Amino acid sequence: MANTAGQIIRCRAAVAWEAGKPLVIEEVEVAPPQKMEVRVKILFTSLCHTDVYFWEAKGQTPVFPRIFGHEAGGIVESVGEGVTELAPGDHVLPLFTGECKECVHCKSEESNLCESLRINTDRGVMLNDGKTRFSINGKPIFHFVGTSTFSEYTVIHVGCLAKINPLAPLDKVCVVSCGISTGLGSTLNVAKPTKGSSVAIFGLGAVGLAAAEGARIAGASRIIGIDLNSKRFEEAKKFGITEFVNPKDHKKPIQEVIVELTGGGVDRSVECTGNVDAMISAFECVHDGWGVAVIVGIPHKEAVFKTHPMNFLHERTLKGAFFGNYKPRTGIPSVVEMYMNKELGLDKFITHQVPFSEINKAFDYMLKGEGLRCLIRMDE
Amino acid sequence: MANTAGQIIRCRAAVAWEAGKPLVIEEVEVAPPQKMEVRVKILFTSLCHTDVYFWEAKGQTPVFPRIFGHEAGGIVESVGEGVTELAPGDHVLPLFTGECKECVHCKSEESNLCESLRINTDRGVMLNDGKTRFSINGKPIFHFVGTSTFSEYTVIHVGCLAKINPLAPLDKVCVVSCGISTGLGSTLNVAKPTKGSSVAIFGLGAVGLAAAEGARIAGASRIIGIDLNSKRFEEAKKFGITEFVNPKDHKKPIQEVIVELTGGGVDRSVECTGNVDAMISAFECVHDGWGVAVIVGIPHKEAVFKTHPMNFLHERTLKGAFFGNYKPRTGIPSVVEMYMNKELGLDKFITHQVPFSEINKAFDYMLKGEGLRCLIRMDE
Repeated sequence: MANTAGQIIRCRAAVAWEAGKPLVIEEVEVAPPQKMEVRVKILFTSLCHTDVYFWEAKGQTPVFPRIFGHEAGGIVESVGEGVTELAPGDHVLPLFTGECKECVHCKSEESNLCESLRINTDRGVMLNDGKTRFSINGKPIFHFVGTSTFSEYTVIHVGCLAKINPLAPLDKVCVVSCGISTGLGSTLNVAKPTKGSSVAIFGLGAVGLAAAEGARIAGASRIIGIDLNSKRFEEAKKFGITEFVNPKDHKKPIQEVIVELTGGGVDRSVECTGNVDAMISAFECVHDGWGVAVIVGIPHKEAVFKTHPMNFLHERTLKGAFFGNYKPRTGIPSVVEMYMNKELGLDKFITHQVPFSEINKAFDYMLKGEGLRCLIRMDE
Repeated sequence: MANTAGQIIRCRAAVAWEAGKPLVIEEVEVAPPQKMEVRVKILFTSLCHTDVYFWEAKGQTPVFPRIFGHEAGGIVESVGEGVTELAPGDHVLPLFTGECKECVHCKSEESNLCESLRINTDRGVMLNDGKTRFSINGKPIFHFVGTSTFSEYTVIHVGCLAKINPLAPLDKVCVVSCGISTGLGSTLNVAKPTKGSSVAIFGLGAVGLAAAEGARIAGASRIIGIDLNSKRFEEAKKFGITEFVNPKDHKKPIQEVIVELTGGGVDRSVECTGNVDAMISAFECVHDGWGVAVIVGIPHKEAVFKTHPMNFLHERTLKGAFFGNYKPRTGIPSVVEMYMNKELGLDKFITHQVPFSEINKAFDYMLKGEGLRCLIRMDE
């Protein structure tokens, strides 16, 4: 690959020209990486809700034409000035939110909300010069969350790349770069259920099932899945879910159902839907005295979380989690290792596969709520 | 004292005959302790907001005639059947909320919300037989939170008494039995600020100042006091408060003022007013990434805590604390030891003193917002 270093690369990319319109596979020009940037050959990518959300751009700032994609695995093609931590040939996972290792957040033990490289969904350009690295006949094509993995080659800030074990199969661990780590870490790093405890998981999509996987790994003995779609329940058993509750089957608020079912409430809950009513239920269903609820899903702009303050005073805790509280560059490689050590299952998350040329099918699956993750093979 | 064991004791008590009416010092009969009960000679008691709140009985279930009082120090006079952990002569602090040591809460490492002896402000009788131990000419006088310390002798469940170091001066450590431990523990046990961190304290009454004292003991370098009464600021310096903010001096929401003042928010906040708007401010003023807010004050029945869920998703935590998360019988003696070791100051909380015969003056001071704690000397 070394002979392309410093050169413009012409390759295929799936361009979103307009909000909500099918992506078009185009030949794009990918400029060489600038200072602190890395050019990566993407081998596998997968589709996440966040891509679809900003592609639909309902109420979001529309940034078009744009190359979406942020869950992926690839290999470093070349590095820009000042990049010392990565070299051509390294296996990497792109990260939609970065880690500069120098700001107050990166230096804190708790936060992963890097000040300089924190996710920015409105920005369509690179930080170094405020311009794009993608173009078609000189017309700039915008980036998405600094990753734009729906392209055979992409340029990413070095702070938004996790260097991983080169033995890890990229067609599996690519899903670790967003949704799976988000769910898994929200349970393991934030909710922290103890062995034998009970955990409620709200929303049984990929993130929720990864949260359930976290509860299973932590040794929770009762993992209650809550979803409006009963079809998801059978599949969810593979991820450690032991019981199912569909709010549609009950007249009373679902938090009351869970409190009754568990004789006082669950020890932990993890909310992965983004629906504010589910957030309230997730909080109010935890046991007084020690219950911890963690919210993960992204709410609407106008959403308001409401509860009676006595619910807190009865010694319940409510926390939010972002990217499973993993520090992006230093924490995500450990999730890959969990897969390599067979602690964490990943294959079961990948329910569909399509060649890159058929990437719009991945959007169809997600819009229909079919399956969990659709793997997109870039070489086809 | 042993010769009174098993006998009815006639002594003075301050009886609240009606809601909001001055207490009347009466001669009452105090029955001997029954199974798992202890009769205690109260030497010092102090007045807490909770007494006043239920004495005013605005919107609360009125339970009259009643003997209020729950912050106190005394000596065991006699014990009932089955009491093995206490003996006559032991120094004790009455506890408005108990610890049975057997329920799921007492057995958990985290909770202090004992299932059998948790505070119950509506109950005016003892658990053993559902009757009172106080009477005047055969007419029962009701208990308050199982302590009723505004009486020279009172009967208390053994699970609601903390045995303390007999060398500790009861005229000081009596204040540990409610407000001081509530504030102190909310910071030390729940908010847990680290050395050098910043802490905001909402409400500079006794509980808030005890929370500040906790922040000082933990080594916080910046302790911001927030109160609507600027007169409290000078006094508050003794409790470690380093900066003052009066919301009346600012047009914008006070959380925004604090975020600006601290360049992003405080590391911890502790809310000690019970006002729901202050709770919201206390939560929204903590730093993203790691901020923890703790609410302590008791809100109105209709209060609703409201915030945008993104405030959680930016990795803020909201917790409630009850009695500073101290296990009542096993934890409170350690607070007394903190005073004995000169770690914790108590004298500065006791701003007024009155003889028992003038107990209504203590109510006046509190209603006027004068001082912090008024000590009531029972032998005068």
